[in-house]
Amino acid sequence: MRASQFHLFTLKEAPSDAEVVSQKLMLRAGMIRKVAAGIYNYMPMGLRSIRKVEAIIRDELDRAGAMELTMPLVQPAELWQETGRWDKMGPEMLRIKDRHDRDFALQPTSEEVVTDIARQELKSYRQLPKNFYQIQTKFRDERRPRFGVMRGREFLMKDGYSFDRDVDAAGRSYDAMYAAYGRIFDRIGLEYRAVAADTGAIGGDRSHEFQVIAETGEDAIVYCPDSDYAANIELAEALALLPGRSAATTALVKTPTPGKSTCGEVAELLSVPLQTTVKSLVLASDETDEDGKIIKSTVWLLLVRGDHELNEVKTGKIDGLKAGFRFATEAEIIEHFGCKPGYLGPIGLKKPVRIIADRTVANMADFICGANDEGFHYTGANWGRDLPEPDVVADIRNVVEGDPSPDGRGVLAIQRGIEVGHVFYLGTKYSQAMNATFLDVDGKPKHFEMGCYGIGVTRILGAAIEQNHDERGIIWPAAIAPFEVVICGVGWGKSEAVRDEANRLYDTLVKAGIDVILDDRDERPGVMFADWELIGVPHRITIGDRGLKEGIIEYQARRDGEQIKLSTVDAASFVASRLRG
Amino acid sequence: MRASQFHLFTLKEAPSDAEVVSQKLMLRAGMIRKVAAGIYNYMPMGLRSIRKVEAIIRDELDRAGAMELTMPLVQPAELWQETGRWDKMGPEMLRIKDRHDRDFALQPTSEEVVTDIARQELKSYRQLPKNFYQIQTKFRDERRPRFGVMRGREFLMKDGYSFDRDVDAAGRSYDAMYAAYGRIFDRIGLEYRAVAADTGAIGGDRSHEFQVIAETGEDAIVYCPDSDYAANIELAEALALLPGRSAATTALVKTPTPGKSTCGEVAELLSVPLQTTVKSLVLASDETDEDGKIIKSTVWLLLVRGDHELNEVKTGKIDGLKAGFRFATEAEIIEHFGCKPGYLGPIGLKKPVRIIADRTVANMADFICGANDEGFHYTGANWGRDLPEPDVVADIRNVVEGDPSPDGRGVLAIQRGIEVGHVFYLGTKYSQAMNATFLDVDGKPKHFEMGCYGIGVTRILGAAIEQNHDERGIIWPAAIAPFEVVICGVGWGKSEAVRDEANRLYDTLVKAGIDVILDDRDERPGVMFADWELIGVPHRITIGDRGLKEGIIEYQARRDGEQIKLSTVDAASFVASRLRG
Repeated sequence: MRASQFHLFTLKEAPSDAEVVSQKLMLRAGMIRKVAAGIYNYMPMGLRSIRKVEAIIRDELDRAGAMELTMPLVQPAELWQETGRWDKMGPEMLRIKDRHDRDFALQPTSEEVVTDIARQELKSYRQLPKNFYQIQTKFRDERRPRFGVMRGREFLMKDGYSFDRDVDAAGRSYDAMYAAYGRIFDRIGLEYRAVAADTGAIGGDRSHEFQVIAETGEDAIVYCPDSDYAANIELAEALALLPGRSAATTALVKTPTPGKSTCGEVAELLSVPLQTTVKSLVLASDETDEDGKIIKSTVWLLLVRGDHELNEVKTGKIDGLKAGFRFATEAEIIEHFGCKPGYLGPIGLKKPVRIIADRTVANMADFICGANDEGFHYTGANWGRDLPEPDVVADIRNVVEGDPSPDGRGVLAIQRGIEVGHVFYLGTKYSQAMNATFLDVDGKPKHFEMGCYGIGVTRILGAAIEQNHDERGIIWPAAIAPFEVVICGVGWGKSEAVRDEANRLYDTLVKAGIDVILDDRDERPGVMFADWELIGVPHRITIGDRGLKEGIIEYQARRDGEQIKLSTVDAASFVASRLRG
Repeated sequence: MRASQFHLFTLKEAPSDAEVVSQKLMLRAGMIRKVAAGIYNYMPMGLRSIRKVEAIIRDELDRAGAMELTMPLVQPAELWQETGRWDKMGPEMLRIKDRHDRDFALQPTSEEVVTDIARQELKSYRQLPKNFYQIQTKFRDERRPRFGVMRGREFLMKDGYSFDRDVDAAGRSYDAMYAAYGRIFDRIGLEYRAVAADTGAIGGDRSHEFQVIAETGEDAIVYCPDSDYAANIELAEALALLPGRSAATTALVKTPTPGKSTCGEVAELLSVPLQTTVKSLVLASDETDEDGKIIKSTVWLLLVRGDHELNEVKTGKIDGLKAGFRFATEAEIIEHFGCKPGYLGPIGLKKPVRIIADRTVANMADFICGANDEGFHYTGANWGRDLPEPDVVADIRNVVEGDPSPDGRGVLAIQRGIEVGHVFYLGTKYSQAMNATFLDVDGKPKHFEMGCYGIGVTRILGAAIEQNHDERGIIWPAAIAPFEVVICGVGWGKSEAVRDEANRLYDTLVKAGIDVILDDRDERPGVMFADWELIGVPHRITIGDRGLKEGIIEYQARRDGEQIKLSTVDAASFVASRLRG
């Protein structure tokens, strides 16, 4: 490609509403252009990278035995009603009425449509396993779309679905996709981590997120540097930080803590470690009748150590809270605790509540907690002596750096990550809801065992940039760079020698199958260099009259700025060796 | 690809709601699966052909200097309001409200979005010409979706848009796209015709449809076998079939024609050629005030020869009818003609109407027309003597087979066609409406000269099948066949020799870059042959024990059924020569 025949469009400044670095750089490099909130044009420069990501995904999935198809963007409500998701999905799913007033949804994913295909076309165990995928536009009407392609409304996603005879076979499909995802992200050239994720009501341990490591990531991912343990923060198990409960050593004292309602403030006031305090959180769960009317509410007090955070996913797995929970209202709190929020605690309740203690809290002695009296905390609180044993002891907190690894092989570290892929074992959730069966070897109908597998195609671009950039712009991994190499011809308009040499090298690289752009715009070197550093092309060759007089052209690597002088005769083979190893 | 690892799904009978042969065969061959009216899954078999069509389109457009990008499917109303198309587009454009109650449309095309890109990113004449295209899902909410991929609601379309400095440059862009389209359809391997089409309000002669010739086509296309004249029926010029008007030879006679209201019935009753009759059509045009209230209506009488059909596109080009017209109401007809429809004519009007005579009618003498009296026609009517000269003489009819070619070089023939592509010069229609300008060489802002260029990607599949099929199934042109070659292993389960030879040939063809599927399903030959003839793979190799004993395998061409016995050693090179010439 010659720059004069391509559409180059760069900006010195990103639009003021751009928030994160990948968004700013993609806009400045002319890779995307905003059309509406969360909706973008993928400009020729950006689409080149998208196509490369797609090609790698297709290659590895096809190799793993998956088959590409395309399911429609506009999907009839009837299928979504079969699984109940028509009602369950929130406003993220954009609903449409066609001219005949029939209901449709813009696909956020395609479980329903693909399960409908399976129940109609996969009739026998002899047709299994089958694995279908599509790379197709998705729409999710995010309440607050932001961060460019990181959380857009219209985006490109690879979604795949496997159909198997039984759980074992589904496990093999899952493992094959897990392995393929690893190869995909390896080939793309990203630093990533596959972390275990929550499986929700499906159960089992077959859910993994593929997280691109980046400081700006929205997700916290937990891993053990000394073992292969890795999980997202929702799932990572938090062990008790105390081996067992010590005996009480101090008396229970009601201590004035006026105006100090957080554990941090109380610890500071009393000059004690934060680790001696206990945080109280009050939740409520509702039972409803058939019409959805609340017939009974239960109030719960959850206790975590002062330096810990409640984990809502773990909380939702506790009996009594599985059907959902909410924060208690102020009225409920006053009714049960006789006190407004701020000084709540487990001692001296007005009305009984269900008490859940985190594993660490359950082992604490002589702890500090709210006294259910405004301006007062208890110090020296002890289970059994000052208050009854908790109703439930459970893991209800997020792990923190330095926690022991659940596999017993070291301590945990935490990184930030951007989720770009997810593999998930679905079991028979959809095949049962839609009565999708095949005839098994015994001649009897059986529900498909399913898995689903997603990759955020456009999000990969954002994640790659969050992980690979500097103050001058993007630093693309070569496999998904819009161009692998740029040749800058300095003094293009004036120097026939520059044009000849640049054209010659360009032709040689093109013939070698290298994706090269020749900058023949006759711009000043500073302009050219700034553009290509912003755009992030990994390898740059500069050809100018001065060097040519000595038979020399200059190579520069985008990532580390390494400069090498090359003889004109060696340039092509040097570039090829840099790219193809 | 091995059939055992692919998703083969064929049906003996098409679903009962399938109407045309391409739809039936695509459903039976498992290329598409219906999800809702006009909305389909493209199954792995169908997607293979789509990807091949896309690849050819990309290759030729890139070669012609066009650049691919992707514009969103969900487009904000604001852009469509700028051009007024938000109001002008009918219910075919599906409108959506997002969760914040903002208006969006599902893209039927993308003129607005691409013009918005141009006005923001193309600032200087130095950036021109530019030609952007996308291959992207489109949605048109057809009132009556039908014919499978021929008239779907969600479909895949290539739409491209050129931006130029002036009319001459826009002409060059147009010509380049016209030429690229020819190469695309040549490579796909379809019999097609590029025909001139109406340019509407834009004017000029730069609008061509690419029509795939097929008896089942919805469009009539007109051409001259002795010249390169070709146009669609809307545009094809109809000359006067009489060189000049003869003198009157008979008297005007009011003749009873009870119950005979059509020209055909009257000609039969009176035993005269249909060509002596004149058909009357009554239209009306309305003038409205600023609020759209009708302030004045004009009634028009249009006269075409009894064997001719009115052409509404041509009619809409006549002064006074350009802003639109409708058929007159019965009340208007009675008011002006003193007679109900059926016996209307230009003689003896109650109130004056504007009379438009087709060129042929204007040259007729002694003609027959309605007498504006139920049950009566006039015979022997003559212009000037029996009625005043027409207000307008114009080409207002469709051409018919045998009409003289407008280029004077023979007579016209008519074929049926399926429109698969359209190139269209837009001028400044959109750039003016959206104030999209660039700075020209003189430093002054100037509106872009634009062109638009569409190809119905999924429709091409349907058109290819309408043109290429027989009673056994599809006959794909090799370039877009889901597979180029199928190898059928007869007695797969039993014969190691068959498996060895089939695997050997398969590996050889794969290495030669040939897209081959190996049918290793262990099915009976009849089942395999029926499947592959239905699916339409152009070349078939059959390997069985009997032939192998003599070192022979069988080749069969799908199109003509030609069978050739090959020695096992020659098979690969024979297939390669059939495919690559």
